[in-house]
Amino acid sequence: MPITDVTETLDPADWEAMRALAHRAVDDGFNWLQTVRDRPAWQPTPDKVIAEFHRPLPQEPQGAESAYQDFVDLVLPYPLGNVHPRFWAWYMGNGTPLGAIGDFLAAIVNPNMGGGNHVANHVESQVVDWCKEIVGLPLDSGGLLVSGGSTANLVGLTVARNTATAADVRVAGVRGLPAPLVFYASVEAHSCMQKSLELLGLGSGALRKVAVNAEYQIDLNALESVIGADRAAGLVPACVVGNAGTINTGAVDDLAALARICERHKLWFHVDGAIGAVVALAPKHRHLVAGIEEADSVALDLHKWLHVPFEAGCALVRDRGAQRATFSLTPEYLQHAARGLASGPIWFSEFGPQLSRGFRALKVWLSFKEHGLAKFGRLIDQNIAQAHELAALVRAEPTLELMAPVVLNIVCFRYHPAGVADPELSALNQELLIRLHESGIAAPSYTTLNGQYCLRAALPNHRTQSSDLRILTDAVVRIGRELSGPRT
Amino acid sequence: MPITDVTETLDPADWEAMRALAHRAVDDGFNWLQTVRDRPAWQPTPDKVIAEFHRPLPQEPQGAESAYQDFVDLVLPYPLGNVHPRFWAWYMGNGTPLGAIGDFLAAIVNPNMGGGNHVANHVESQVVDWCKEIVGLPLDSGGLLVSGGSTANLVGLTVARNTATAADVRVAGVRGLPAPLVFYASVEAHSCMQKSLELLGLGSGALRKVAVNAEYQIDLNALESVIGADRAAGLVPACVVGNAGTINTGAVDDLAALARICERHKLWFHVDGAIGAVVALAPKHRHLVAGIEEADSVALDLHKWLHVPFEAGCALVRDRGAQRATFSLTPEYLQHAARGLASGPIWFSEFGPQLSRGFRALKVWLSFKEHGLAKFGRLIDQNIAQAHELAALVRAEPTLELMAPVVLNIVCFRYHPAGVADPELSALNQELLIRLHESGIAAPSYTTLNGQYCLRAALPNHRTQSSDLRILTDAVVRIGRELSGPRT
Repeated sequence: MPITDVTETLDPADWEAMRALAHRAVDDGFNWLQTVRDRPAWQPTPDKVIAEFHRPLPQEPQGAESAYQDFVDLVLPYPLGNVHPRFWAWYMGNGTPLGAIGDFLAAIVNPNMGGGNHVANHVESQVVDWCKEIVGLPLDSGGLLVSGGSTANLVGLTVARNTATAADVRVAGVRGLPAPLVFYASVEAHSCMQKSLELLGLGSGALRKVAVNAEYQIDLNALESVIGADRAAGLVPACVVGNAGTINTGAVDDLAALARICERHKLWFHVDGAIGAVVALAPKHRHLVAGIEEADSVALDLHKWLHVPFEAGCALVRDRGAQRATFSLTPEYLQHAARGLASGPIWFSEFGPQLSRGFRALKVWLSFKEHGLAKFGRLIDQNIAQAHELAALVRAEPTLELMAPVVLNIVCFRYHPAGVADPELSALNQELLIRLHESGIAAPSYTTLNGQYCLRAALPNHRTQSSDLRILTDAVVRIGRELSGPRT
Repeated sequence: MPITDVTETLDPADWEAMRALAHRAVDDGFNWLQTVRDRPAWQPTPDKVIAEFHRPLPQEPQGAESAYQDFVDLVLPYPLGNVHPRFWAWYMGNGTPLGAIGDFLAAIVNPNMGGGNHVANHVESQVVDWCKEIVGLPLDSGGLLVSGGSTANLVGLTVARNTATAADVRVAGVRGLPAPLVFYASVEAHSCMQKSLELLGLGSGALRKVAVNAEYQIDLNALESVIGADRAAGLVPACVVGNAGTINTGAVDDLAALARICERHKLWFHVDGAIGAVVALAPKHRHLVAGIEEADSVALDLHKWLHVPFEAGCALVRDRGAQRATFSLTPEYLQHAARGLASGPIWFSEFGPQLSRGFRALKVWLSFKEHGLAKFGRLIDQNIAQAHELAALVRAEPTLELMAPVVLNIVCFRYHPAGVADPELSALNQELLIRLHESGIAAPSYTTLNGQYCLRAALPNHRTQSSDLRILTDAVVRIGRELSGPRT
């Protein structure tokens, strides 16, 4: 019999030293967060720091303290910046201190949320139930936490694919369908819709990108006519994706009208609520997402406007049985037992693509309990008010131009001095944005609307104050003047 | 202009109180981890605790301290148990203290690893390079961190699907392929292979489950003949999946032979190394996975045998361009800039299904640097030696029966008193396992081999000591005797 003479472990030789390091990490982390406003919104990483990340695999131990010191020296000074009060790029949350504590505790307990009988599954089940309450789906709906909006949308669209016809897509695949399926979304829908259809083997050709109106909402008449044309052509219209907050401008489709269209044509109604589903919490604006409660499936992000640290999204599917029938696969080593470790009513791996799953539910659970959802609703209203404030600042400044209506918390605008037109104008704004980033003053991002390059500020930020908005417009005007010369 | 009169934030009103709570979480977490051996390996959650998780959405704030206290009272006492030295169920890592500190820091910095120019992308890039070094893939391969083995396998199989023919699967979908694709894996391959093909629209019918030999390795002759038959039938053989450590018994396919078969038939060679890819680190056993370095794609799990807290897996693809061509989609709001926040050479969202991505790289980076990979290699050898020790204990006990060869760290056995046969024997072992769980002594799991129910101990556990193995066999024999009465 082979004998293990010396038993090694990854547990610390000196637990008290490791505990002291954890306390140091808490203090360093809190000091860093509390002073975030004193630092630039963004700054580049020096080349000599980047060079450190090309060292080969470490064979020998460096020790915990030394590894941690590398984090402090090399990583902490050069963040993405989305913790900063004037970071408004793409669409990201800021995180919270208790959210970070939640991730620490989740990793200490370190459960696998794929299945089994343990209390953490009940934590996730409760959080998912709360998400159903947020959007108004029945409590007997299916759902699970996922990595974010892309996966949440994928889950909804997968169930839509598998239930569109009587064919057994799980066995026969897409080639076993009686005719090609068609999915519908506006041209403003997020790119993850196309990525999902590509992954699902339907191909981007199965996605009809429907035109939008002046408010960037899906054109309902155009939608109905393309559905009719597809059906006449022998295709199988399967699913309409409604946007609750588009990524470009924050537009919200008429979800109630889409629900009626889906009912009339017997289509799956999926809502991409990665940005805007949580507007259902906001007393002053929840009417904007009315109709979301009629969806067959909803994708939510919790690491965006609810500020849970990355990653946390939620996929909800009204027909729990259909969700389980799409994803459940229980080979012999995953059979449930009647009692013991392998029993339990909730095996989340049967409701989505992952088997091993982390305890992301804990940070959500702690965060919702800490603040209460009424506060999240007020913060959403606050951010939408800030977006309107920023739009008003833009309108009040002659060299700034508002590029799209403000509905939620996204503001698209550009520096537009008299006498400059595209393509020069787009090039000017591109360079302006880079200079703004390099200044560290603020970090909006960019998009292109009707072929015109825009600055784009997304304001889910819980640290933004009104004074930050004027700092942005002042900086844009100043840098714009520097770049465009004496002309203005 | 709407005015925001009062600015609310999710930042604490009292930062020092929140900091004190974080320090308390560190102490509670460390106290809990340091005493894990004193507690049962598993215990059920009381019904009155479960009832607490049916409370509706909290509208009003409970406060951080009170929410945390609920965690201490309701969640911490009823874990899955995979932190325990005698937890050997399914196949899970234990986590480490510095891994948990890493998750705390990742959530404090809270970057989105989808793209942009920030140092965290270099951390992930380095960790992915280290994974290439572990399995011997070239440094110019593609790769990214993912949630775990299921997604890592999905990434590899998606690239295999999209590159199998000249058809543009991203646009035309699976129906646009000239003929049905076929994927090959042994009957012992993990269920996520089938789940992946279902998700990809190929259908489970596209998966040929090839027979295994007495060592549970894929039968190479059977594989070659089914490839030939499929090609003769006008199908398109696309990909062979090799197992580096099967979930049931830890069998390792002959990877070098599979590489030669794939080369001969021009097939994609994917290796599921969720369990065993890291055996390449182990001095005494790395020969078992020879040939993995010839794979076109490899799935690794870092939250299993390397004990990074959940979730952490890695998908590697030799042809970086093919991986990017499969997943990259850059709409206007994700275009790269030349400088500033939106520049940078590494946008991981272009290499996998997720757009928003968390900073899971940090815990991996800290963990590899802390211990050095040589130590992980020694620990893998140690676990394999422990598995052989356990097998020897089973062989030495007349009422225990070893059910499969031990190659890596998985041991399948059963209590088999004289005169008892199936189906009674399977029922006896099922009840025995539940009693063992309920006793809290140890937590192996179970599988079915050749129709026979087995107890199954997977030993990636870095806390297991040799004495724990005898505690297991003693308990199995004792409970087995109690259940089967005076007969033995």
